[in-house]
Amino acid sequence: MNKQDFEALDSFFHPRSIAVVGVSRDMAKAGTFYLQGLLRARFKGKTYPVNSNGGEILGLKAYARVADIPGPVDYVIVSVPRQSVLGVLDDCAAKGVKAVQLFVAGFSELGDEESLKLEGEMVKKARQGGFRLIGPNCIGLSCPAINFPLGPEAWLAEAGQVGFASQSGSLAGRLTQVGIARGIRFSKIVSFGNGCDLSGLDFLEYLALDPETRAIGCYLEGVEDGRRLFGLLKETASRKPMVFLKGGMTGPGARAALSHTGSAASSAELWTAVLRQTGGILVKNLEEMADALLAFQFLPFPVGRRLTIVSGLADGGGGEAVSATDTSINLGLEVPDFAPQTRHKLTALLGPVGSILHNPLDVSQAYSNHPLIARALDVAAADPNIDAIIIEAVMDNLLRDLPEMMVYAMIDVLIDFKRKQAKPVVVALPPSLSEADRKKTEKRLNAAEVPVYPSLERAARAIAHLHRYSEFRQGPSG
Amino acid sequence: MNKQDFEALDSFFHPRSIAVVGVSRDMAKAGTFYLQGLLRARFKGKTYPVNSNGGEILGLKAYARVADIPGPVDYVIVSVPRQSVLGVLDDCAAKGVKAVQLFVAGFSELGDEESLKLEGEMVKKARQGGFRLIGPNCIGLSCPAINFPLGPEAWLAEAGQVGFASQSGSLAGRLTQVGIARGIRFSKIVSFGNGCDLSGLDFLEYLALDPETRAIGCYLEGVEDGRRLFGLLKETASRKPMVFLKGGMTGPGARAALSHTGSAASSAELWTAVLRQTGGILVKNLEEMADALLAFQFLPFPVGRRLTIVSGLADGGGGEAVSATDTSINLGLEVPDFAPQTRHKLTALLGPVGSILHNPLDVSQAYSNHPLIARALDVAAADPNIDAIIIEAVMDNLLRDLPEMMVYAMIDVLIDFKRKQAKPVVVALPPSLSEADRKKTEKRLNAAEVPVYPSLERAARAIAHLHRYSEFRQGPSG
Repeated sequence: MNKQDFEALDSFFHPRSIAVVGVSRDMAKAGTFYLQGLLRARFKGKTYPVNSNGGEILGLKAYARVADIPGPVDYVIVSVPRQSVLGVLDDCAAKGVKAVQLFVAGFSELGDEESLKLEGEMVKKARQGGFRLIGPNCIGLSCPAINFPLGPEAWLAEAGQVGFASQSGSLAGRLTQVGIARGIRFSKIVSFGNGCDLSGLDFLEYLALDPETRAIGCYLEGVEDGRRLFGLLKETASRKPMVFLKGGMTGPGARAALSHTGSAASSAELWTAVLRQTGGILVKNLEEMADALLAFQFLPFPVGRRLTIVSGLADGGGGEAVSATDTSINLGLEVPDFAPQTRHKLTALLGPVGSILHNPLDVSQAYSNHPLIARALDVAAADPNIDAIIIEAVMDNLLRDLPEMMVYAMIDVLIDFKRKQAKPVVVALPPSLSEADRKKTEKRLNAAEVPVYPSLERAARAIAHLHRYSEFRQGPSG
Repeated sequence: MNKQDFEALDSFFHPRSIAVVGVSRDMAKAGTFYLQGLLRARFKGKTYPVNSNGGEILGLKAYARVADIPGPVDYVIVSVPRQSVLGVLDDCAAKGVKAVQLFVAGFSELGDEESLKLEGEMVKKARQGGFRLIGPNCIGLSCPAINFPLGPEAWLAEAGQVGFASQSGSLAGRLTQVGIARGIRFSKIVSFGNGCDLSGLDFLEYLALDPETRAIGCYLEGVEDGRRLFGLLKETASRKPMVFLKGGMTGPGARAALSHTGSAASSAELWTAVLRQTGGILVKNLEEMADALLAFQFLPFPVGRRLTIVSGLADGGGGEAVSATDTSINLGLEVPDFAPQTRHKLTALLGPVGSILHNPLDVSQAYSNHPLIARALDVAAADPNIDAIIIEAVMDNLLRDLPEMMVYAMIDVLIDFKRKQAKPVVVALPPSLSEADRKKTEKRLNAAEVPVYPSLERAARAIAHLHRYSEFRQGPSG
């Protein structure tokens, strides 16, 4: 991507003004949702409703056509029936807008000749009009730093350094929701849909160059140019982690992708091979995508393969730790023995009975004495055989065993521990009978930049992604 | 297991009276926790505190020794230092109790000669005294129907038909917590620890015969008698599903298991082969165990392999459905094309544009019109190619797009749909920004006996377990 194209795309994510075409006083229309969403999110630019009847909508003056808007219009959101789209594009050309996002569906994803032809005509109009198209069949762009929210439902994530590009609008929306809930902070989000003009690859190349983006996630159903993706990955993955979720890896999945976004199949073997060779990271579902992005957002590279798993902050944690050890080994990680001096120190701190003073480490023998647990964590993390630390905190046990003040003192032990640790620290915080307390704890840990996972297994899987990526970056000799 | 042994174990789960030894006015002691837990759960039998100083504890008269208690004592919970255990067992023999549960740890799991010898002496005392031992190093039994809660933290699940036996107390506690949160209803729960007298196999044989138990879950780290387990599985799995989580399947996991419960390793290959041959179900972690038990609790057998995945109750659901289709195929399920008449009916209902009217089915074109969605669900489920239905409901989208009343009307559509369906119906209800609404919805669905999963993938995996078990039950010709 050349400098000019990069700057064009960058400007689309930072529009000074947005017009929404297809807004009405009918609150149940998608266009009205978009307008309302921009207002609710307090979008930092100007917002203009466009409605053929004019008048006032949600307290704003509505214009009959985009060309009627007095100031400059950088970005237009179009939510009209597909047969009206070409007329709107003429209007956008007349105004001299830079980018048009088409929420409208019913084009190449249907696969019939008429729909394909209509999509082709839209691209022609864009070329002639000197603007670019995003979509159709997409929910568009988001840039949290300027309160530019995602889609008609106007999800507004925290601003940060994770970029996400998705062929599916619903999946972009879901990842954003999960990100809001779990503390993923986004630089840019894009749902590019059919990508008839600006494609998924254009957006990926943009995110690869974007200095505001440190890690990239991507949901793809098809790729129009495998060679270009390969080149992009080769160039980018050694600088920025790129995490892929590929829809349509199986026959029926590919058939579903075809009717969803009109994407043709490509084999699972090919994808896996290309990503392995180029350092791209392949995940299997939305949850694993969020887990990986959370790790890449917060944790330092490189990450070695040797874990310690600590449980028993309140009550025992033996069974889960044994099971998580099995999982970690199967993911290519190690849960090595502690060095002899570590074992001696732990025995001196916690005593030999009732705890697992090996690795995984069950600290329940400390009976939730948090200064003692803080010292045990320091001892375990200082072990020369250990590269990364997973701590399980079970809210239900903590809340049952301790007064509330002590529960949060225990969480602060984890935060202090993380602050002084050079080694990566993650916390497994399983679903709780008191989700309110669990969310409060998760937010507290997120604020301290500790990635939080809903199970030991998912924490281990996220570390495994970081570790494999670290190995790739360091090269075969690393 | 003979009738007499079955009846003995059954009586342990239904004690008329429980004495807790090791109770004091110090509220931070495990024994006191047990006593408090029995009171809080409103255990339906009698509860007696035992403390060498007598007096009154939590409003109850404390007895210096078990033998001093005036009425009969069926079950004794022992939480004293290990060097005091033998004396307590003499006291239990004098009283003529039937079962003694040893919360105490520090025996064979430590692996040293002294600890092994002490455990042997306890068993001898039990034989001589005519009572049985549960543990040591365990949190004991639970029977929700009589408000007999689990462990010192006194988790009390809903009463139902799922039995669970665990070598790990913490894992038994966690599964119970998860069960309470997710609507798993338990007949009996047991943490059997080192199993020095009554072993895990004894409890499994009991649950296999127990008419109150319809499905069995089990966490094991080691098996003292592989042949006996094999026989039990062969005898039971064709009548009741038995779901296993095996800790220590890898070298380091086995090492951790050894220091946790003193269990020797057995290979992953052996386990997998034995379970496959006998119809046992192997899961990889606590979450998958809960997912499978929830399915076996609520869903009818047999379950075929052909799924439909429905998304888009509010907003689109295309990307997640494509990804879940891939997952389902990789699990050995099918997501087949709908029959032509189904496609015609769906097109007539929802129109061709913007929705996936194939399978997976995206009903977002109904724009959350719930009578229309109800009809689309009926059409999809009536398809002769479909054996089971997974519906994704995304609370964040529903709450954003609909007034609250309409959100719950939509959930009621799912409940009505399930009520009239002979085919299994499950709901994927991902974590939400509003966990309070999500939990409310989950409870509503649970009350209607709909299993609820936190992701499409986990829903598909649960159905895959049901399907494989169904195939086993029907035999190779089925």
